[in-house]
Amino acid sequence: MQTLSVEQKAALCLGADFWHTAAVPGVASILVSDGPHGLRVQPAGGDHVGLGGSLPATCFPTAAALASSWDPALAREIGAALGVEARAQGVGVVLGPGVNIKRSPLCGRNFEYFSEDPHLTGVLAAALVEGIQSRGVGTSVKHFAANNQETDRLRVSAEVDERTLREIYLPAFEHVVTRARPWTVMCAYNKVNGVYASQHGWLLTTVLRDEWGFDGVVVSDWGAVADRVAALVAGLDLEMPPNRGVSDRAIVDAVADGSLDEAVLDRAVDRMRRLVERAGPPSPDPAAVDWDAHHALARRAAADGIVLLRNEGHDPEDRVLPLHDSPSLRVAVVGELARTPRYQGAGSSQVNPTRLDVPLEEITAALPLATMSFAPGYALDGPPDRLLADEAVALATGADVVVALLGLPAAAESEGFDRDHIDLPTAQLTLLSRLADTGVPVVVALAHGGVVRTDPWEHRVAAVLECWLGGQAGGGALADVLTGAVDPGGRLAETVPLRLADTPSHLNFPGEEGRVRYGEGVFVGYRGFDALDRPVAHPFGHGLSYTGFGYSGLTVDVDGTDLTVGATVTNTGARAGREVVQLYVGDPECSVARPPAELRGFAKVALDPGESRTVTFTLGARDLSFWSTARGGWVLEPGEFEIAVGASSRDLRLCRTVTVDVPLPRVPLTADSTLQEWLADPVGGPALRAAAGPGILQDEELLRVIGNFPLGRLAAFPGIGITRETLTHLGAGERGAG
Amino acid sequence: MQTLSVEQKAALCLGADFWHTAAVPGVASILVSDGPHGLRVQPAGGDHVGLGGSLPATCFPTAAALASSWDPALAREIGAALGVEARAQGVGVVLGPGVNIKRSPLCGRNFEYFSEDPHLTGVLAAALVEGIQSRGVGTSVKHFAANNQETDRLRVSAEVDERTLREIYLPAFEHVVTRARPWTVMCAYNKVNGVYASQHGWLLTTVLRDEWGFDGVVVSDWGAVADRVAALVAGLDLEMPPNRGVSDRAIVDAVADGSLDEAVLDRAVDRMRRLVERAGPPSPDPAAVDWDAHHALARRAAADGIVLLRNEGHDPEDRVLPLHDSPSLRVAVVGELARTPRYQGAGSSQVNPTRLDVPLEEITAALPLATMSFAPGYALDGPPDRLLADEAVALATGADVVVALLGLPAAAESEGFDRDHIDLPTAQLTLLSRLADTGVPVVVALAHGGVVRTDPWEHRVAAVLECWLGGQAGGGALADVLTGAVDPGGRLAETVPLRLADTPSHLNFPGEEGRVRYGEGVFVGYRGFDALDRPVAHPFGHGLSYTGFGYSGLTVDVDGTDLTVGATVTNTGARAGREVVQLYVGDPECSVARPPAELRGFAKVALDPGESRTVTFTLGARDLSFWSTARGGWVLEPGEFEIAVGASSRDLRLCRTVTVDVPLPRVPLTADSTLQEWLADPVGGPALRAAAGPGILQDEELLRVIGNFPLGRLAAFPGIGITRETLTHLGAGERGAG
Repeated sequence: MQTLSVEQKAALCLGADFWHTAAVPGVASILVSDGPHGLRVQPAGGDHVGLGGSLPATCFPTAAALASSWDPALAREIGAALGVEARAQGVGVVLGPGVNIKRSPLCGRNFEYFSEDPHLTGVLAAALVEGIQSRGVGTSVKHFAANNQETDRLRVSAEVDERTLREIYLPAFEHVVTRARPWTVMCAYNKVNGVYASQHGWLLTTVLRDEWGFDGVVVSDWGAVADRVAALVAGLDLEMPPNRGVSDRAIVDAVADGSLDEAVLDRAVDRMRRLVERAGPPSPDPAAVDWDAHHALARRAAADGIVLLRNEGHDPEDRVLPLHDSPSLRVAVVGELARTPRYQGAGSSQVNPTRLDVPLEEITAALPLATMSFAPGYALDGPPDRLLADEAVALATGADVVVALLGLPAAAESEGFDRDHIDLPTAQLTLLSRLADTGVPVVVALAHGGVVRTDPWEHRVAAVLECWLGGQAGGGALADVLTGAVDPGGRLAETVPLRLADTPSHLNFPGEEGRVRYGEGVFVGYRGFDALDRPVAHPFGHGLSYTGFGYSGLTVDVDGTDLTVGATVTNTGARAGREVVQLYVGDPECSVARPPAELRGFAKVALDPGESRTVTFTLGARDLSFWSTARGGWVLEPGEFEIAVGASSRDLRLCRTVTVDVPLPRVPLTADSTLQEWLADPVGGPALRAAAGPGILQDEELLRVIGNFPLGRLAAFPGIGITRETLTHLGAGERGAG
Repeated sequence: MQTLSVEQKAALCLGADFWHTAAVPGVASILVSDGPHGLRVQPAGGDHVGLGGSLPATCFPTAAALASSWDPALAREIGAALGVEARAQGVGVVLGPGVNIKRSPLCGRNFEYFSEDPHLTGVLAAALVEGIQSRGVGTSVKHFAANNQETDRLRVSAEVDERTLREIYLPAFEHVVTRARPWTVMCAYNKVNGVYASQHGWLLTTVLRDEWGFDGVVVSDWGAVADRVAALVAGLDLEMPPNRGVSDRAIVDAVADGSLDEAVLDRAVDRMRRLVERAGPPSPDPAAVDWDAHHALARRAAADGIVLLRNEGHDPEDRVLPLHDSPSLRVAVVGELARTPRYQGAGSSQVNPTRLDVPLEEITAALPLATMSFAPGYALDGPPDRLLADEAVALATGADVVVALLGLPAAAESEGFDRDHIDLPTAQLTLLSRLADTGVPVVVALAHGGVVRTDPWEHRVAAVLECWLGGQAGGGALADVLTGAVDPGGRLAETVPLRLADTPSHLNFPGEEGRVRYGEGVFVGYRGFDALDRPVAHPFGHGLSYTGFGYSGLTVDVDGTDLTVGATVTNTGARAGREVVQLYVGDPECSVARPPAELRGFAKVALDPGESRTVTFTLGARDLSFWSTARGGWVLEPGEFEIAVGASSRDLRLCRTVTVDVPLPRVPLTADSTLQEWLADPVGGPALRAAAGPGILQDEELLRVIGNFPLGRLAAFPGIGITRETLTHLGAGERGAG
């Protein structure tokens, strides 16, 4: 191994340019590329801002769509495909996936994130990472941590307590790091409790490396470094893009004046060296990619993420979906989005696709016998257009079914800013109302990244397909699901609220004056809706199939703190289909406030008509525990836990209450322990009663009033019978014991 | 002035016993007494815990009832009566009023507090303080600050940001301190952001004395001192009850070893000396009190606080209330509370009343011609009792009207613990349902301290009177209102929610592991309900009269930042009555999130039929401002403000939008200012464009994505046109200027 000068070491801790790490003697440069759902390699001579045109690559479904598949095997497969494309383009590290939790539906970057739930996010992202890295290409799990909004994202401080971090915002990172061992982690732009994530020693070193065992490189989000030396000390190895002449100078100066231990620099250099070794020399070969196969995979994946929110009708034959092709079927396809698809979001994840399915063409091809017609109905940007709407309504009037493609225009959501409402554009709502007035059944297919309200109009339409931003083959996937060639495989990875104001974070999003209070704590998404028993349009986990599923045979075996849960799911309909069996756990009696039920397991099951399958989940102590900030660790309290299996957080088909018998965590009694705590303690209570004598401790009414006094404070109260001598006798003087 | 030894000075900073300050040479001892709504002087030989039997005194309505009067003149009158009773019993300082904000309906001590609104609380509490002090007796405004729950109250840390403190939890204290100059302020038990209120230098000195000009004594809540020396340094002058032998020793030792500047001790001694001088020598003379007059005042005050929540019927003659006495009227009075009244809360405010109105007797006396019957219907503590209910239903069946007295048993709410639900007891709900089944009109009169739900049953009854805990003459007051001898004068000082889970603080009350997150921020009470547009059972400010009122003639004169608002209210009915005219202000466009409307003024107006009165309010800059934590002060942003006058926060009869023209607060531009902030600045924008040249700054789409980058970070991005030279040129290097 070559010996490097301090200057060379410093150089290695900054990139060479926007997309390359620096080369120093003995360490080669590697290319990194945006691309959680597709690569974005900028050719030489690009815009140098990092957002312009890139080499063609497969645009797979965005994370919002992929998460709706609830299918880690699919995520792994897509990851492998991304890895192949990355190698073919000479990319050493793919800058993704983004695993931030959807704290508010308004976050402009929600399309790049998986879910409001950390378990679902972690499992899917780990599978994606495994897939990419299985092809010898690295990943960068981002944005670490608590980057849950775009507003003021480079300065805002996420004010969030440790329990909430540990239970909601960190577990997806933890799962990916400990299970899939990503080569790199990307720090967030924002501050966490007042400290930049790029300089957050507790996050980047204590938690990430010391607790989770991360052994890779921490890279800055592009431009996230405020103080290069402070960041280095905190555990940030690589600054991108390089602030050359400033950051390297600062490192060299700090070593020179002794304020930075060179060992800290060496640590980062070693990690960079190891990263470059892992990546190996690039071997670009675009011909190595089977682009057709990747397009087909993108189509399958998109269909797997389409959520059938509604399909009115008691019996299958009463329902408008799936459409049955026939010469007598007249289909009016309405919506500009049918010919101008929206399939990905704007910002650093924007892919230049290898090809692009146009929904109108795909739907037409999938219904060769039917009579098809099309009208745009609305302009993507702009106010309601009466002429466009008139044309669409006229078309609808002569049809048997209207397929209306609605959604958000690209300008409505992007990296860089948050939305300020969750309604569809007025032009589309106006059109939809008129289409519904015709009496012809309307199927709505939605394309957008962040959640939109469905409540105002949903009751007027026959079916709703939530397609998210489905990537370059989303049009074909929609056709597959409309016709029933593919059973709608998606389930909601986030709650669809009735109103924006119902969302638990609403009053605290996006904060003000540089701070955002995570005032809802752990009650994010369905955890909050369920804790408040607040009605929603569609609950977390919801999604219909063209067939039906029955649940039966719940078994729960308790072995210490290990639980084995079994449940049988049966296809009760006449078609093959896929169900997502979901396992939720609740802890109704606990010393801290907990959500009524939290997702702790899921399994996607494909079943033929009449077929049954038994799904088994295993749970451990961690799955039952909460994070105790006071005790600095995960705590499992003995008692009853509710184990529920079902089809959404509000469709729990099988429930069982089990008792977990572990010792009650004992807290030492001190002078600061309350009278109630002393009296409730099996040892301290009798000791106190003996020491204090009868009298006031037998007055139950008075005890209710003064029971929350720390014992030490009562020594100043005459008549209680607790003196300083009592405290000394009980060993409750300074620290005390019980 | 005598010279005191350090030991004597230390002694003066502790009480002599539970209720007396210490006497030292030249400084007499004074007696203090609990008693926001009535005195609680314990005779020598009492229980020494401070909660046992006390000398008889007038039990006036609790703060919850008094606040519902919205009548500062009444509060002043009661204060004066309390002052007279205090002097007569030799009391130097009355330990009240309590002005903590009702953050949650569950707080066990809400009966002792005024409102969820700081303006209403401050105005009424200041009047009460003025009244008491007008008789030469001091007050102790408590509990300073953020003591909004009983759970773990001696240890819990209220985690609350400064804006929320400044706008919600401190203004009532500020108003009382600056307007009424109380002799003492009592610190709270709890911690505020991790520091005990008793040791909180920012609260006790910076804010209270330096900003608000408080010149009196800060006394500890009883047992609130954890570290006597730290408390002294923070500004706590008097520890009660005295932890003799510990706290005095600690002070003496700290002076001796130099860790405590004796000047700090002298400061507290001077304040104690001044307090004793203000109080003067006691002159106990129980005969000096006109107890009959005070009882009559208590009755008038209780009626003034009774809120008529509901009185079904379109026209007055269709309504069940007021009752018209006649020989043909048959009234069934139902409810144990009719003969066993609940009229005050438990804990330190519990008064031994001079006499006690029994509602059943008072109602019977007020309807001398009618045929009266009574059945208890339920037991105050215990499950539904079928026999009791049967008897009451039988009675009701033969009556023309049922007057059902319902409420909470004493055991349900008290100082010392919080409630865990807001429902009436099951026994009462069961009875009420059966009473409603009879078809006989039911009038419900409620007695309790904290809010109870009305939604589950209210639609089944003809009228609801919310009487709170009305003091010793509450029974007579109820009779006065039932018969219409007195128009129901009360308006809600707190929102009655549909469900507990709807309250904005719900997910964050009462906290856990020693911390309670004020996650709802400024959105407490109606501020939160209105911001979320969440339905409520009865909004803040609501209350009916037996007559009706019309609003007209809104005028708003704007003179700089001074607004004069006028509105005319007219009695449109056939009876004399009283209306509370309420003024709300909203700031729809603001750089921080603000409640839609906030109470900024109110006036109680008595009007004869047909009479009109014009009410005038004056508002200043502070009334339009928010607290900017970033800028450390009140900020008024120019633009539109909504001025609304009406009968509740959701019954705004007159509205006007006015423009306030003040200079936009200018923030200096630095390298940490974002691209958007630079471009929006009238000076900085053109300077930046000139320095950076064309290109990327003209790409509006790109600007939306990178607009929230601080300018300094963009220097590392190639192609933007912003280099370090640009920054230097703009003066945005280290601190920068614009």
